[in-house]
Amino acid sequence: MSQDSKEIPSSKPWGGRFAESTDKDVERFTESISFDGRLFREDIRGSRAHARMLARVGLLTPEELGQILQGLDRVEEEFSAGRVELRSDWEDIHMHVEKRLVHHAGAAGLKIHTARSRNDQVALDLRLFVRRAAEDLIDALDRLLRATLMKGYGYRDLILPAYTHTQQAQPVSGGYYFGAYAERLLRDRKRLRGVIDSAGLSPLGSGALAGTTLPIDREFVASELGFSGVTQNGLDTVGDRDFVADFLHALSLLMVHLSGWSEEWILWSTREFGMVRLPDRLLTGSSMMPQKKNPDILELIRGKAGRVVGDYTGLLVLLKGLPLSYNRDLQEDKEALFDAVDTVAGSLLMMRLAVEGMAFETARIEEILSKTELLATDIAEDLVRLGVPFREAHAIVGRIVAHAAAKNLTLEALPDSDLALFFDRFPPGYSSTLSPAGSVRRRSHTGGPAPETVLRRLSEIWQEVFSAAPPWDSPSSSSSEGRGGR
Amino acid sequence: MSQDSKEIPSSKPWGGRFAESTDKDVERFTESISFDGRLFREDIRGSRAHARMLARVGLLTPEELGQILQGLDRVEEEFSAGRVELRSDWEDIHMHVEKRLVHHAGAAGLKIHTARSRNDQVALDLRLFVRRAAEDLIDALDRLLRATLMKGYGYRDLILPAYTHTQQAQPVSGGYYFGAYAERLLRDRKRLRGVIDSAGLSPLGSGALAGTTLPIDREFVASELGFSGVTQNGLDTVGDRDFVADFLHALSLLMVHLSGWSEEWILWSTREFGMVRLPDRLLTGSSMMPQKKNPDILELIRGKAGRVVGDYTGLLVLLKGLPLSYNRDLQEDKEALFDAVDTVAGSLLMMRLAVEGMAFETARIEEILSKTELLATDIAEDLVRLGVPFREAHAIVGRIVAHAAAKNLTLEALPDSDLALFFDRFPPGYSSTLSPAGSVRRRSHTGGPAPETVLRRLSEIWQEVFSAAPPWDSPSSSSSEGRGGR
Amino acid sequence: MSQDSKEIPSSKPWGGRFAESTDKDVERFTESISFDGRLFREDIRGSRAHARMLARVGLLTPEELGQILQGLDRVEEEFSAGRVELRSDWEDIHMHVEKRLVHHAGAAGLKIHTARSRNDQVALDLRLFVRRAAEDLIDALDRLLRATLMKGYGYRDLILPAYTHTQQAQPVSGGYYFGAYAERLLRDRKRLRGVIDSAGLSPLGSGALAGTTLPIDREFVASELGFSGVTQNGLDTVGDRDFVADFLHALSLLMVHLSGWSEEWILWSTREFGMVRLPDRLLTGSSMMPQKKNPDILELIRGKAGRVVGDYTGLLVLLKGLPLSYNRDLQEDKEALFDAVDTVAGSLLMMRLAVEGMAFETARIEEILSKTELLATDIAEDLVRLGVPFREAHAIVGRIVAHAAAKNLTLEALPDSDLALFFDRFPPGYSSTLSPAGSVRRRSHTGGPAPETVLRRLSEIWQEVFSAAPPWDSPSSSSSEGRGGR
Amino acid sequence: MSQDSKEIPSSKPWGGRFAESTDKDVERFTESISFDGRLFREDIRGSRAHARMLARVGLLTPEELGQILQGLDRVEEEFSAGRVELRSDWEDIHMHVEKRLVHHAGAAGLKIHTARSRNDQVALDLRLFVRRAAEDLIDALDRLLRATLMKGYGYRDLILPAYTHTQQAQPVSGGYYFGAYAERLLRDRKRLRGVIDSAGLSPLGSGALAGTTLPIDREFVASELGFSGVTQNGLDTVGDRDFVADFLHALSLLMVHLSGWSEEWILWSTREFGMVRLPDRLLTGSSMMPQKKNPDILELIRGKAGRVVGDYTGLLVLLKGLPLSYNRDLQEDKEALFDAVDTVAGSLLMMRLAVEGMAFETARIEEILSKTELLATDIAEDLVRLGVPFREAHAIVGRIVAHAAAKNLTLEALPDSDLALFFDRFPPGYSSTLSPAGSVRRRSHTGGPAPETVLRRLSEIWQEVFSAAPPWDSPSSSSSEGRGGR
Repeated sequence: MSQDSKEIPSSKPWGGRFAESTDKDVERFTESISFDGRLFREDIRGSRAHARMLARVGLLTPEELGQILQGLDRVEEEFSAGRVELRSDWEDIHMHVEKRLVHHAGAAGLKIHTARSRNDQVALDLRLFVRRAAEDLIDALDRLLRATLMKGYGYRDLILPAYTHTQQAQPVSGGYYFGAYAERLLRDRKRLRGVIDSAGLSPLGSGALAGTTLPIDREFVASELGFSGVTQNGLDTVGDRDFVADFLHALSLLMVHLSGWSEEWILWSTREFGMVRLPDRLLTGSSMMPQKKNPDILELIRGKAGRVVGDYTGLLVLLKGLPLSYNRDLQEDKEALFDAVDTVAGSLLMMRLAVEGMAFETARIEEILSKTELLATDIAEDLVRLGVPFREAHAIVGRIVAHAAAKNLTLEALPDSDLALFFDRFPPGYSSTLSPAGSVRRRSHTGGPAPETVLRRLSEIWQEVFSAAPPWDSPSSSSSEGRGGR
Repeated sequence: MSQDSKEIPSSKPWGGRFAESTDKDVERFTESISFDGRLFREDIRGSRAHARMLARVGLLTPEELGQILQGLDRVEEEFSAGRVELRSDWEDIHMHVEKRLVHHAGAAGLKIHTARSRNDQVALDLRLFVRRAAEDLIDALDRLLRATLMKGYGYRDLILPAYTHTQQAQPVSGGYYFGAYAERLLRDRKRLRGVIDSAGLSPLGSGALAGTTLPIDREFVASELGFSGVTQNGLDTVGDRDFVADFLHALSLLMVHLSGWSEEWILWSTREFGMVRLPDRLLTGSSMMPQKKNPDILELIRGKAGRVVGDYTGLLVLLKGLPLSYNRDLQEDKEALFDAVDTVAGSLLMMRLAVEGMAFETARIEEILSKTELLATDIAEDLVRLGVPFREAHAIVGRIVAHAAAKNLTLEALPDSDLALFFDRFPPGYSSTLSPAGSVRRRSHTGGPAPETVLRRLSEIWQEVFSAAPPWDSPSSSSSEGRGGR
Repeated sequence: MSQDSKEIPSSKPWGGRFAESTDKDVERFTESISFDGRLFREDIRGSRAHARMLARVGLLTPEELGQILQGLDRVEEEFSAGRVELRSDWEDIHMHVEKRLVHHAGAAGLKIHTARSRNDQVALDLRLFVRRAAEDLIDALDRLLRATLMKGYGYRDLILPAYTHTQQAQPVSGGYYFGAYAERLLRDRKRLRGVIDSAGLSPLGSGALAGTTLPIDREFVASELGFSGVTQNGLDTVGDRDFVADFLHALSLLMVHLSGWSEEWILWSTREFGMVRLPDRLLTGSSMMPQKKNPDILELIRGKAGRVVGDYTGLLVLLKGLPLSYNRDLQEDKEALFDAVDTVAGSLLMMRLAVEGMAFETARIEEILSKTELLATDIAEDLVRLGVPFREAHAIVGRIVAHAAAKNLTLEALPDSDLALFFDRFPPGYSSTLSPAGSVRRRSHTGGPAPETVLRRLSEIWQEVFSAAPPWDSPSSSSSEGRGGR
Repeated sequence: MSQDSKEIPSSKPWGGRFAESTDKDVERFTESISFDGRLFREDIRGSRAHARMLARVGLLTPEELGQILQGLDRVEEEFSAGRVELRSDWEDIHMHVEKRLVHHAGAAGLKIHTARSRNDQVALDLRLFVRRAAEDLIDALDRLLRATLMKGYGYRDLILPAYTHTQQAQPVSGGYYFGAYAERLLRDRKRLRGVIDSAGLSPLGSGALAGTTLPIDREFVASELGFSGVTQNGLDTVGDRDFVADFLHALSLLMVHLSGWSEEWILWSTREFGMVRLPDRLLTGSSMMPQKKNPDILELIRGKAGRVVGDYTGLLVLLKGLPLSYNRDLQEDKEALFDAVDTVAGSLLMMRLAVEGMAFETARIEEILSKTELLATDIAEDLVRLGVPFREAHAIVGRIVAHAAAKNLTLEALPDSDLALFFDRFPPGYSSTLSPAGSVRRRSHTGGPAPETVLRRLSEIWQEVFSAAPPWDSPSSSSSEGRGGR
């Protein structure tokens, strides 16, 4: 430390104006290095681009630039190896990098902060982080999407009961079922892409809030770092956390989607439903009850939705009522962001394992299908074909259902004579024409569950996301995938 | 009522299957007509398109279609005039429209619900509403944006202190100041455009959750209603409220932006700051203290940010853990949505009135500028030009600031001899070269506060949003607008 | 209006200082009468007490007091009858009452606002409202609690499977099951009582923020209105909404409890679980699917939990960052409060109807009990009795369960020879000693499910809440209640 | 590990029933030791009490009890010293303690989990933690309260402007000002006390959800651990997190209070207000602008309010819709709880440093007081004394204020002739009788700002909280404290 304190006038970057040193408790309370250390790669990457720009406009000599770039390489090594001592009195990642740079690069390092404030620097680091994290989560989401599509393909011919209000509604197929979640994931994916765009302009050069009198070249830095352009107003930019809010919104909604899916499979893997089986490697037991196998990963995903929503709510609360430009409250954006990113990454992985590992219990599903009134709507629609206004058809079938229930018969088992009590123009043997699989096949319009409609859509999604034909379109794969579930 | 109950088998659309009538308290608790009545235009518009489609595919005769379209016209008149009695036992807007349609159109009306469920119908109404409401809010936002840009133009040459941490930081211009909020509004605008896109596919034809066996033409309906296409999976579609969440996110963030702006002007219009004056017509008084003039509209905007965030949080809580397809919980989406839309509409209007009506208190602002250390950064950057590494320059100026404060002098008033105590190469008469206006002019890079940079940006935004040259580019306007503030 | 404007110098209570009249849009945005009109009873009640105090300290003559009290009676009649025109330019309930009072009581009415500000007046109204609303909700909760206890008593001997992780865990009784919810309700009840206490001091006399120079008697007002004392600092009091937050917290948690209960019965009333049946009068159907009967009231309760949490979150957001004393943001507290109160009132009623109306499907429950491994823990604990350390016992039984599952036998059906494979000291015929009912009976410690423990606790709660012996302790009731479910 | 795996049949406490080992990613996702390790003291403390109970009822021999107690001592040493390797495959703190206990205590350790489940164990640990954390936070709050009262006493005679709507309202004293925050803290304190009560019953013995067949003595355990009794229903208890919600509510509101206080001082320490000065040791600077001194600790407190609100919202989201008893979602309660506790602890400390370190800038405050209309209400109330109805008095003074403003005079400086324009019965020399200090003295009723009222209340609070006479009542202290601020 004595060494360092020679290199820079004070251990603080801003000590000159102060008459007494900072209270140690204050240092501990205000430091951010304990969590923003995670941004070291972004900070160093940004500093490299900034240094190149400074050299380009003549604020660094080529020699100084060389020293700085070499120094930054060494700082990055130190951080990667976990060899940098984190010090509260150095406050944050920016000062840690600068201090270590001065250590390695000497006097040149004292110039790195030229034409830069921590206000625009942290905005830069955060944008770089958000863009990278969103890309990573899109990758994880794509892996889940792949598993979902494969499973949908595998179960494309399995007839499932579908539910509204958690009550049996109408028959669909396994392909349609997984397809529904694929649609949700597609929207989440689009939202994450939008976040990358939200964070797509370089803030560097905004300075503390109003730029600098030095002759900087913001567009050069932006281009070096892969941004599509630069932000247009420093007062706005240094306090702008819209892109973080957009990200947390996207993540909240994604987790809400996963929470519903988890809920559904928690339910379907009860002994009472018995429709879904997860392998033992994904289940956990009880410390007291020897028989238990619990779908804990699904429950945790469901619970973690709360965590991410809390992260987002917390951000909105902190942003509320803040005047323009930088306020220190904004430091509190990071932990919520990191927590949400990590939570979603873990949840996407677990959901993928669940999708890959699950199997439908087909015997139980057939049993369920054999005892339901899932085809009531089909009958009503057949009455429409026979000229009955739908509202009346609905009422007639309602009475038929009540009648069947009273006789403890399925709709498919009702004899013509019973049907005739309610409507006199049913074709002979009408009930026997009804079947869940037939019902599914008949609903073949866009967005419907008919097998060819579903398969076309699954293929379309695959093509769109993976820019390649789906594996089931290649001759080799079709045979092995056809049996469902794996 | 006796009349109606002849027209339709039961007052409920689903009564056939039930053995006893609904508890009256249950009817009151589950009804939604008291709030979804607001969707009557959307519901009728959707029904028109649906009826045309039914006729197109042969499920309605041309004559029936005519009766239905005429009937819907009459229903719309009734609703517009507030002449429809709202009945809990008719549950929701969909049944109210259907019941009144049957009243006016007779038997043809009993066919309107063919190939349709309230599940896809409410999704349609909600999407139509969201698209229209987002358009309306963009209009309101544009009016605020116009006022903001005009004000920025008017005050483009006024020098203002800018703040970080609510502490004086550096000088900027009024144009830059309003430009910062224009950037925020631009992002809000983009976000609202994204919402229109989010709600851009037609859900109709999804049925209860899996479409219909009848030969519908979903693309026709979509095209009639101005959608760009149709949704692709009924199981997903009927429970999809992502577009509502996207909307509430956009509105939450917009309100957060307005809350910060309000905060700033609440502060700036205190007697202590005294920088902003609002006209009496926008202020309110106290029932007890005769002297009070309070900026209540700004405080209410600030407070209403909480309301919209609450609306959004509430939606996320209700969505959490819901299985696929329609669950009745979703009925709770509407009031939060309506409340947020209305709140934002009112807040945008008030903010516009505030922007249009406000004036900067230029004398007070000059007084503030005359006593500050706002140019400290300029000095440090001048030292950089003289070859001092920035980190050292910062420390030197910090000591100069402390010295000036001790002598109770401004930086601009420090004699050369005092400056020389801290750095020996200041040019003679250096302090006198410093001025807030000069400081602003020097920061002319993209995103900086220099007048020409700001003017270029204000014009660019105007052009982008209003697809026209800004008024200050036309010869007539420039003279009258130049004086600022109006 | 011309009449009124003679009675009071200006239509605004604070017009004297203002040079122009309020913008009409501002009036509409800032008015609160459209929702705080709901507080008219509280406002008038507070005004009566205030007037009596003014007379007591000599600021009103006895005659003026008489005129005011009579006038307030007439104002209350007008409001009760809905005959008061609500006017944005009269802003809020306080001014509406004052204006109408002046209309009825003449000049005496101009004195009602002596030594009072709307800041302390609204705090008073709100406290009176919160206290009354909390009392009302406690009544509603008590009715639900009564139904819950009766149901628990009725089903005290029914054996039910209990679940952890939504997976079958151990057998309990119906009495224990309902007793669990009774405990939750008891805590909610205590929390609501705490709210009444939170709002238990009179704010009147705090004035705008620092009292008054007039010789008021705050304690007299407090005593008139049933408060236990007065608040102790005006600066704090006029901005204190802690009691609203406490209320919204209590209501959020109550709704969270009801949401879980709803979830459970949504699940248990699926055809797959089939454990709970709700009567048709509490169910609703589908507009498209004739067979559907859906537990909509439970789904709505579940969804409305989000609404109340949103109300609370919104309040916290608006309170965040507010300086001391009154800020207009606080006006936004009311709608959230009213909405939460109404939502909870409706939900408590619906939950009570559900509890009263539900029945367990005992045949299905027996079927479930006959196929489970619910007694695994009992076996492990019996091994402990035989000296096996619990951790080993758990492992042994785990293996037995796996063995039974492989042989498709229940634990109760395992022959001695099979048991002996895993542990050699089981008593002969051990399995046959196992039964769900026996298992329940054996867990008789405090908080356990044994019938006598449960009955004692149900009685204790009844006694505590209703200050009376439970009905099942009286000779007449026991016979009719014993059969369960009604 | 090989050693341990001999001691216990499997590394998992529930492995017996499982056919394959847990997926490593699943282990990482589901583990909680990385955060619940923080509960080791509570877990061990609970285990000691549990072991003593087991011995008392004969399920452990005295020798085994001795081994277990000694073993637990060694485990606690290991944890305190940070010497326990945390392993994902050991899942949580409970298994880590058990595994290490078995290591140290041998076979006796295998009995520790007798008659216990992790479900009731974690409920116990959490309750012990909440009770201790609430006690600790009350201590921290008391230290802040002490500083607040001392400061209020020190500044009891300083006249301050008070604000509504952030606009100058009426004069108060420094004692009154700090007294307002003391009232808020008192309510927070009461709320925290309530949390300790909320968590005041022992859950141990609830087992997995329905107790145990073994002859436990729950009341003994409760008494050992300082609880006032035991919970009454296992199904409820193992899923009950009301006490965590109560805690997070109390902490949210406390942070909201601190956020407002911070906001106020951020504002008052601007150069424009200039009313409050914080010492350099509590301020931080800028990396770019050499002159800056920013009240970062206050901004961070304000921002951290969002964090705690987010923690609470997240908990409510996760609890929503959970069926009875234990669900794994509940594991997510801990990090939010820990985060909120730590955040509040830090914020209370910082606020105390700010209170202790701040000073009022009395010269600036006098300047503000000399230019205001703070006494307008006094004049109106004097008119009331002269028989003018308050509503008219208010209007008259409103006009006087406008007149004074137009003449650029303070109210106190208005000559009799000017006053007479608006009201003809002002006593001669009336204006000169007005003064801020006099105004404060006149408002001496309970809750008013008069010095003796304030001093009585400050003393009362001190006595109540610290059970001792305040230091200013002792002869020695009065002289040194009288000068204010330190």
